[in-house]
Amino acid sequence: MCTAATYQTKDFYMGRTLDYEFSYGEKIAIMPRNYPLQYRHGLKNIEHYAMIGMAHVVEDYPLYYDAVNEKGLGMAGLNFVGNACYQEVKEGAVNVAQYEFIPWILSQCASLNEAKKLIQTMNLVNTPYNEQLPVASLHWIIADQSGSITVESVKEGLNIYENPVGVLANNPSFDKQLFNLNNYMSLSPKQPQNLFSKELDLQTYSRGMGALGLPGDLSSMSRFVRVAFTKMNGQSRDNERDSVNQFFHILGSVEQQRGCCEVADGKYEITIYTSCWNSQKGIYYYTTYNRRQITAVNMHKVNLDAQQLTTYPMLDDEEFYEQN
Amino acid sequence: MCTAATYQTKDFYMGRTLDYEFSYGEKIAIMPRNYPLQYRHGLKNIEHYAMIGMAHVVEDYPLYYDAVNEKGLGMAGLNFVGNACYQEVKEGAVNVAQYEFIPWILSQCASLNEAKKLIQTMNLVNTPYNEQLPVASLHWIIADQSGSITVESVKEGLNIYENPVGVLANNPSFDKQLFNLNNYMSLSPKQPQNLFSKELDLQTYSRGMGALGLPGDLSSMSRFVRVAFTKMNGQSRDNERDSVNQFFHILGSVEQQRGCCEVADGKYEITIYTSCWNSQKGIYYYTTYNRRQITAVNMHKVNLDAQQLTTYPMLDDEEFYEQN
Amino acid sequence: MCTAATYQTKDFYMGRTLDYEFSYGEKIAIMPRNYPLQYRHGLKNIEHYAMIGMAHVVEDYPLYYDAVNEKGLGMAGLNFVGNACYQEVKEGAVNVAQYEFIPWILSQCASLNEAKKLIQTMNLVNTPYNEQLPVASLHWIIADQSGSITVESVKEGLNIYENPVGVLANNPSFDKQLFNLNNYMSLSPKQPQNLFSKELDLQTYSRGMGALGLPGDLSSMSRFVRVAFTKMNGQSRDNERDSVNQFFHILGSVEQQRGCCEVADGKYEITIYTSCWNSQKGIYYYTTYNRRQITAVNMHKVNLDAQQLTTYPMLDDEEFYEQN
Amino acid sequence: MCTAATYQTKDFYMGRTLDYEFSYGEKIAIMPRNYPLQYRHGLKNIEHYAMIGMAHVVEDYPLYYDAVNEKGLGMAGLNFVGNACYQEVKEGAVNVAQYEFIPWILSQCASLNEAKKLIQTMNLVNTPYNEQLPVASLHWIIADQSGSITVESVKEGLNIYENPVGVLANNPSFDKQLFNLNNYMSLSPKQPQNLFSKELDLQTYSRGMGALGLPGDLSSMSRFVRVAFTKMNGQSRDNERDSVNQFFHILGSVEQQRGCCEVADGKYEITIYTSCWNSQKGIYYYTTYNRRQITAVNMHKVNLDAQQLTTYPMLDDEEFYEQN
Repeated sequence: MCTAATYQTKDFYMGRTLDYEFSYGEKIAIMPRNYPLQYRHGLKNIEHYAMIGMAHVVEDYPLYYDAVNEKGLGMAGLNFVGNACYQEVKEGAVNVAQYEFIPWILSQCASLNEAKKLIQTMNLVNTPYNEQLPVASLHWIIADQSGSITVESVKEGLNIYENPVGVLANNPSFDKQLFNLNNYMSLSPKQPQNLFSKELDLQTYSRGMGALGLPGDLSSMSRFVRVAFTKMNGQSRDNERDSVNQFFHILGSVEQQRGCCEVADGKYEITIYTSCWNSQKGIYYYTTYNRRQITAVNMHKVNLDAQQLTTYPMLDDEEFYEQN
Repeated sequence: MCTAATYQTKDFYMGRTLDYEFSYGEKIAIMPRNYPLQYRHGLKNIEHYAMIGMAHVVEDYPLYYDAVNEKGLGMAGLNFVGNACYQEVKEGAVNVAQYEFIPWILSQCASLNEAKKLIQTMNLVNTPYNEQLPVASLHWIIADQSGSITVESVKEGLNIYENPVGVLANNPSFDKQLFNLNNYMSLSPKQPQNLFSKELDLQTYSRGMGALGLPGDLSSMSRFVRVAFTKMNGQSRDNERDSVNQFFHILGSVEQQRGCCEVADGKYEITIYTSCWNSQKGIYYYTTYNRRQITAVNMHKVNLDAQQLTTYPMLDDEEFYEQN
Repeated sequence: MCTAATYQTKDFYMGRTLDYEFSYGEKIAIMPRNYPLQYRHGLKNIEHYAMIGMAHVVEDYPLYYDAVNEKGLGMAGLNFVGNACYQEVKEGAVNVAQYEFIPWILSQCASLNEAKKLIQTMNLVNTPYNEQLPVASLHWIIADQSGSITVESVKEGLNIYENPVGVLANNPSFDKQLFNLNNYMSLSPKQPQNLFSKELDLQTYSRGMGALGLPGDLSSMSRFVRVAFTKMNGQSRDNERDSVNQFFHILGSVEQQRGCCEVADGKYEITIYTSCWNSQKGIYYYTTYNRRQITAVNMHKVNLDAQQLTTYPMLDDEEFYEQN
Repeated sequence: MCTAATYQTKDFYMGRTLDYEFSYGEKIAIMPRNYPLQYRHGLKNIEHYAMIGMAHVVEDYPLYYDAVNEKGLGMAGLNFVGNACYQEVKEGAVNVAQYEFIPWILSQCASLNEAKKLIQTMNLVNTPYNEQLPVASLHWIIADQSGSITVESVKEGLNIYENPVGVLANNPSFDKQLFNLNNYMSLSPKQPQNLFSKELDLQTYSRGMGALGLPGDLSSMSRFVRVAFTKMNGQSRDNERDSVNQFFHILGSVEQQRGCCEVADGKYEITIYTSCWNSQKGIYYYTTYNRRQITAVNMHKVNLDAQQLTTYPMLDDEEFYEQN
């Protein structure tokens, strides 16, 4: 499925893995300030914040999977199948189609606080982009350096959760995921003490035994716990190179290797891409399953006052570096 | 600590992670056929098989961590602290210092079978390289495309284990590690069946639930199980690019992220490098904690009939690829 | 804390453990049909169903921990500290004090269906019995042979959950407990298959490996899973002796042994008593930590048309049976 | 399968569960000092220590499952299928048939120390009792208040292990079982600390969370860990009643409930009986699956200078105690 995380050093980083058994075709898409944002149910943003992110682009429209705007507010949509439930269009309401949620927020909000307020006013509806692209079942993490929230539209309504851990995976709902961390409270990067019995001479025969009990499989509850542990305990210097590098190591802890998650006979879910953006600098980094080297796209290298979407293909083929 | 694995597609691949809190200074070292192999206790190999591997090089002598020879036989030494125990020098015996074990085998054996025989004839002794470099506590995995063995020199003597899973980590001894896999036999890349109770409507709420119970921490027993699962179930096309890429994903499942294994106050064990060699082609690939791009050194690009060691620095600094 | 379960053979059985570090003084209390049930907030039941259960009796009033009525409807209150939240008294509402909930239901409802309806009409309020006995934080399981429900009064209101598994423990809320069972769906009383890898010859070296992963500690989530597994897979003949015996084995799987749950220095939570009632026959069986032999109290041996409570001390001292 | 444990308060207690899908027919058998002990391979003990234990009695010969002698040395044989391997009869050696091992030791040794010495001198052989009773595959725990040992006769020879934990289960071999405890060293009867992350407000939502990770299934490795935790942390007063009671609670933690371990279609392994002897007093206590009340047989109530075996049927039918 997918996993998202945030990471704070000198700058604020955020990103996600996208795990699936095939790709819809992704591009890095920069939407400048004057790209005409005409929403499905009549709304319109003329001039707005620019944003960069990974998208499936249809008819020059970016269906963003994740993105960050020029103000440093980032957002990612992750699978939430079976729980996600969107509203019907209501007359007089601010109807935002599910696929428009990321641009709706990132085009208008300069901060997480502004996003929280705007979310309260909208009606998130189940209008598909077109007949070929039915409504995805998603929930979202929205974050800037002030914090994170999770937004889940379910049968009972729209839930907005504070997200103190700054990670998101998939099912179950966020309250269950967060609660589940309590069960792992004794896990530590340090070696364990012998609390079992003072009369037994138990040994730490290996390094790294303090986190015994950390789940290692690819289910969404296990990925949530594992990436939370890795993120909360992760250490790096605070420069750009080391921060970005550490971020990819954090999400590397929940990478899906081909063969380990069979979704149908001979079909395997893999980590198609991993992204990481520097929220302050507007640089979008990514790696893919086949391309380990980190590739960077800088939104400030294009004219952000333009009207046209700028897109870059997602590079997926690595050249080995030949040292001799 | 460290983890090693093998992987068979069209060619046979093998490699390892080296996990530690600091580096001794590693180089990729190619030892050609006429490099004079003078052993500590009087033995000598004049003409021998060439080999390539990662080594700490002292006075032009490669202290190999792992290597493969031109015949496709590979070998890696991994920490085995507390269990490893080497012999005293015995007069009349074929005394091989622990640090000479890799060149002793790789210089003379064209296959795993030859290695098994040669190992029976030697006396593996506890002579240190010099006073600054005390004897490391190691055990070894030796493999070619016919199979793998694990060699452990312990208090009771030298144990040579068939290694059907083709992986090695650290403590405890290999028989315990292999036995422990039995406890994970029901783990699967496929979704689980409800065997708990036919009367309960239990749900697979996430993909990847078939491996629930797979350990996710960094201790050596957990890494053994996790990399075994990932390797045995790993899937890739059989060409060089995809095979090598998949191999790095396999060892990526046991990567040590900085911060998750604290070995002393503020000191963290990390995966310093990960290696992967194509045993048939004599190409040694590696990545480092800071350099994700795969770097390749091909032993056949140097004169293998030479007498001098050829070394390459271990590149550890990644340039992000700037796409715009 | 506590664990409750139901069990169906020819008759319907239900019961619970009460786990705590000290006893308030328990008695088996039979409330006959004409015992005057005067409720705190003005309500009254003149003639009502008789019931039997374990209670702390104050001033001839039974504060029931668990009970069953003559119609076969049973009910048990279990700790729910931190989540339980009761209402304020509302004028005009059917205000039922938390400590009156068990008699309120059991005196008036002949079935689970009737209980469901009656619960909807009441306002469960936080009036304490007296100043020495503050309001306990409880949730409840109510069951007859048609099924089970769980009732939780929380900050958001009163939740009534269908309880398909027929067990209850403590925190977290019931939806989380029930959801958590999904993570154990592959556990089985049968031996596991090797799904890890067809290429490895993994062994079932012991019987009982099909439930590897079942939690064995005394926390409430672990007890919920363990007793659910034991109950759902439990097997016995359907006569009274074997059914009751099997029921005590089921709850024995979550017994708290003195020393294994330290709640303060030198204070240990233990299973003070375990109860099991035959809902059809009105027999209340129990064991205690110190008295393993099953003791039975039959409500039909007293005059159920009386007005006075009949109580029996909870026997807690076992005579060993001397066979020679 | 089976689990054995020791427990020290004022006196020294030892006992075991016997888990199987059917009973061979057990009796409590007291062997007095002058019972003629004629061994299969020519050895003989004329006058010897008396003993009491559970046995399958054939032709007046007790095939002991577990027993204790009048000096306080106890011994229990537990299944060790697949690992147990006994010797061929050797001329000139002290050949002791596997089924004679318990009387061989208990008739001659007044202490664990004496037992250790005597074991070194014997040749434990694979002679069956008769054709209907093939050689069982067992290993043994031998203990008095000075300590415990485990004796395993395997392909490589006879292993005598110090047993600091004083428990035994079944496969794998004892070194692996003991080593495995290291993986549970952080488990505690006390509540856990939050070591996961200081920045997260994790909660102990339930009592008993300090032992999260304790295995709860019925496999032999899990029973070993669970009973070790329960025994090492068990607390009771030191009088006879409380000590014996606590001992049955300890072994209750590994009881096998009918239905949870299916060994063939519709065949379930259960805890047929649980024993506990007071080594000083020579009293043998037991319970069975169907009889929870503790039954006691005192060896000192019979004439220990007699020549005849005294046996008592294993009572397996409980009368409920009717309190009204």
